[in-house]
Amino acid sequence: MTGRRGSGALHQPAGAMGRPALLLLLLDLLLPEIAVALRPALRALGSLHLTRPTSRPAVALNYSVLYFQQKVDHFGFNNPKTFKQRYLISDKHWQRDGGSILFYTGNEGDIIWFCNNTGFMWDVAEELKAMLVFAEHRYYGESLPFGPDSFKDSRHLNFLTSEQALADFAELITHLKRTIPGAGDQPVIAIGGSYGGMLAAWFRMKYPHVVVGALAASAPIWQFEDLVPCNVFMKIVSTDFKKSGPNCSESIRRSWDAINRLSNTGSGLQWLTQALHLCSPLTSDDIQHFKEWISETWVNLAMVDYPYESNFLQPLPAWPIKVVCQYLKNPTVSDSLLLENIFQALNIYYNYSGQAKCLNISETATSRLGILGWSYQACTEMVMPFCANGVDDMFEPFLWNLKQFSDECFNQWGVRPRPSWITTLYGGKNISSHSNIIFSNGDLDPWSGGGVTKDISHTLVAITIPEGAHHLDLRANNAYDPASVLLARSLEVRHMKQWIRGFHDNARRQH
Amino acid sequence: MTGRRGSGALHQPAGAMGRPALLLLLLDLLLPEIAVALRPALRALGSLHLTRPTSRPAVALNYSVLYFQQKVDHFGFNNPKTFKQRYLISDKHWQRDGGSILFYTGNEGDIIWFCNNTGFMWDVAEELKAMLVFAEHRYYGESLPFGPDSFKDSRHLNFLTSEQALADFAELITHLKRTIPGAGDQPVIAIGGSYGGMLAAWFRMKYPHVVVGALAASAPIWQFEDLVPCNVFMKIVSTDFKKSGPNCSESIRRSWDAINRLSNTGSGLQWLTQALHLCSPLTSDDIQHFKEWISETWVNLAMVDYPYESNFLQPLPAWPIKVVCQYLKNPTVSDSLLLENIFQALNIYYNYSGQAKCLNISETATSRLGILGWSYQACTEMVMPFCANGVDDMFEPFLWNLKQFSDECFNQWGVRPRPSWITTLYGGKNISSHSNIIFSNGDLDPWSGGGVTKDISHTLVAITIPEGAHHLDLRANNAYDPASVLLARSLEVRHMKQWIRGFHDNARRQH
Repeated sequence: MTGRRGSGALHQPAGAMGRPALLLLLLDLLLPEIAVALRPALRALGSLHLTRPTSRPAVALNYSVLYFQQKVDHFGFNNPKTFKQRYLISDKHWQRDGGSILFYTGNEGDIIWFCNNTGFMWDVAEELKAMLVFAEHRYYGESLPFGPDSFKDSRHLNFLTSEQALADFAELITHLKRTIPGAGDQPVIAIGGSYGGMLAAWFRMKYPHVVVGALAASAPIWQFEDLVPCNVFMKIVSTDFKKSGPNCSESIRRSWDAINRLSNTGSGLQWLTQALHLCSPLTSDDIQHFKEWISETWVNLAMVDYPYESNFLQPLPAWPIKVVCQYLKNPTVSDSLLLENIFQALNIYYNYSGQAKCLNISETATSRLGILGWSYQACTEMVMPFCANGVDDMFEPFLWNLKQFSDECFNQWGVRPRPSWITTLYGGKNISSHSNIIFSNGDLDPWSGGGVTKDISHTLVAITIPEGAHHLDLRANNAYDPASVLLARSLEVRHMKQWIRGFHDNARRQH
Repeated sequence: MTGRRGSGALHQPAGAMGRPALLLLLLDLLLPEIAVALRPALRALGSLHLTRPTSRPAVALNYSVLYFQQKVDHFGFNNPKTFKQRYLISDKHWQRDGGSILFYTGNEGDIIWFCNNTGFMWDVAEELKAMLVFAEHRYYGESLPFGPDSFKDSRHLNFLTSEQALADFAELITHLKRTIPGAGDQPVIAIGGSYGGMLAAWFRMKYPHVVVGALAASAPIWQFEDLVPCNVFMKIVSTDFKKSGPNCSESIRRSWDAINRLSNTGSGLQWLTQALHLCSPLTSDDIQHFKEWISETWVNLAMVDYPYESNFLQPLPAWPIKVVCQYLKNPTVSDSLLLENIFQALNIYYNYSGQAKCLNISETATSRLGILGWSYQACTEMVMPFCANGVDDMFEPFLWNLKQFSDECFNQWGVRPRPSWITTLYGGKNISSHSNIIFSNGDLDPWSGGGVTKDISHTLVAITIPEGAHHLDLRANNAYDPASVLLARSLEVRHMKQWIRGFHDNARRQH
């Protein structure tokens, strides 16, 4: 039932990409000073970056852990400081003759976790005679430009941008090509998922001389400004629930008013606390937070709606939304019965193992760097508008409020977002002059709404995986993989082989 | 004999591009503390940025002077400071229907001077129904991020990079397209010469969603690291002299030893002072400087070896090297006769008007910002190796010494060069995946040695102008233009029309 590696583990923290959504979703409601970093959702997602033995591969992966001296600031000369960027290399299947280099463009977390959870690269290494390189993103894992001070203030955070990260990758690859005998003559392919997929795509766009192509899995490069409707994300989550069981999304849609009604009285709050087995008594001040916590659970489920047992924040069954929806078949019951059903559904997510004594909606924030870093990035470059209208989706309506978001970011970090910069820098929808990028998306993944799901040209291709959640294609092979993801992976390999062949043909022509 | 505009004016300061060459040429020899900024050559070239009435067009050009608020730092969020970037717009010939926008990517100097001296854009505006935009490069002209403090120290200079300049251009164009009715639907073409040509090419490479193509005139994008031999520049200068008169380059080659011999004695120095009509008596300490001053003169002549009377630092005759070489026909004469001939040659360059009373090799440095800015850029990103061997060229041999250069930059600016960064960032010779760039070069121009002079693909095309000096093609039409530059300009227009047509075809397909 499980692949040889990382069964059930999400390769990239879906949640990490979920953060901005949830972040924004919640921003309207919480106190500014805790608005950005201290979300329960963020906490939960942050735990992805903790040591997670269950996500480790069954077979130990062999790689070397190395460090490369990077300039803290690639775009200015006044600061001569450097830091050590961590990267991993595995050359077991690498062949100098006709081989290749697959380069994982690390995203917002510990690179070892990404390495262990990107089974696809390990699975195709032999076929592509590939060296595998996993580069850690600055400000995450061990790659901290200012060590423990890295998140101290906006001055120290100033060098946490996608541009600096891409420059790190370019410098690292240039270094590897110059220092590893035989590597200089080999094509490099960028691979990444989620924010890492955005980086892979942008890397090919900005440094096409460094990588011959990019596989950008579940990369919502259009989840900016007004490139896609701000409610597309929540709409896809809702559709997942709608398709996973009769009346499922409608039950959830009706649950918000039920909660609102129940929470109007002290006895209602008390009842909710008991019925949902909450660890702490609900107060009327908690209600908004409580509803967001539930919303986030549905969002997370949509991202990890995988066809086999997996282990996200808690162990989950195969097709978890289907399991959840078994409890949500009847939306027209009484408020209390509806909420009891909601509890059963939540309990699948938070207590599949049966070990949890109660459900906790208010743990204190973890100080994991991954969370801090992404929160800062969401407040600067990665400004992703989200909203819901309650009609096309099953959520309580909320608006995208840039002004308020900006103020909260300023309170939190002392910086203000620059919402149009990513579009100006990376082109928005006007990217047809680039080449050799695969955009893969799963239809179940809410992030597909901000992704490229149609071919842009014959070298900028979209691969969609109807049964896929968040970058299922990057996960290790699994006996329960649907045919669509097998096809996607084989198409991806075919494109990569074409790029590799093209590179070698070119090299031959030049000699 | 003159075009309607800017007759005889160099569009971009050839000298500005010449600075690094001369800079490096001289670096081995002068005192470190004055090595970078205070060169006579730099002074002379800096005067290009002064008001130069003779370079103004005969017919006044109509443009509006505007300012756009730019972030001082596009690549970080800690510094919220902005500054006003100056730009010029002329829309006399612009048509909303099927029109275009020609965008001059300003280089190291006052944008008004570039505007007045890029006759080509004015000449083709009507045919391309084009709006003309000239954007000033940050840290030059009036576009000073920190006003008078901009050059104070490396902290203030930190934002003087090509990346920041390109980001300025991208933001400005995005702004223009959003705010000028009709401009949003129009293709933008980047045009620049010399360093501005490099910027135009790099702009298309990094922001292909912003400009549909680029005309990069006399852009030595390969004058970095070991992409071309470091002596190619001086070799081309020498070839120009060799082809312009019998024994001309040989006379110059022999002059160095003659100077060395003459300067061995006090009477020799005295004789040299008189024979060359120097304003101040030569001392033995001056000799190296004196030879460099002469070398720079030959370099400058090569850059401005135009087919008609022009006005560089001094008024010059048509084909000035030919005129100079009339005095340098006999290399085997005595040292003193040879140097008297050298004086006659120099006198063409420094005293064509007959007004100069003496030749001055040691004026004090001007504080023109243009010079300071380029000196800093040469010490950081724009690290161009130069050398001469005295065999393939007519100069005294000198080596490229990066270590010494770096130390001198550190003394001067408190920063060290990063010689491989430009190649890592912009791709060096590996740029074939890009499209729609015209690289034009004149065979007489020493900068063509670091330029792209062969087609890379059918959309990355090289245009060479056998009779052309430094970006002759960007100059206004002139009755004495050789056929080769007329052909070059017409090819350039043809490519631009193709890009414009392609843009409109694409737009139609999408609607």
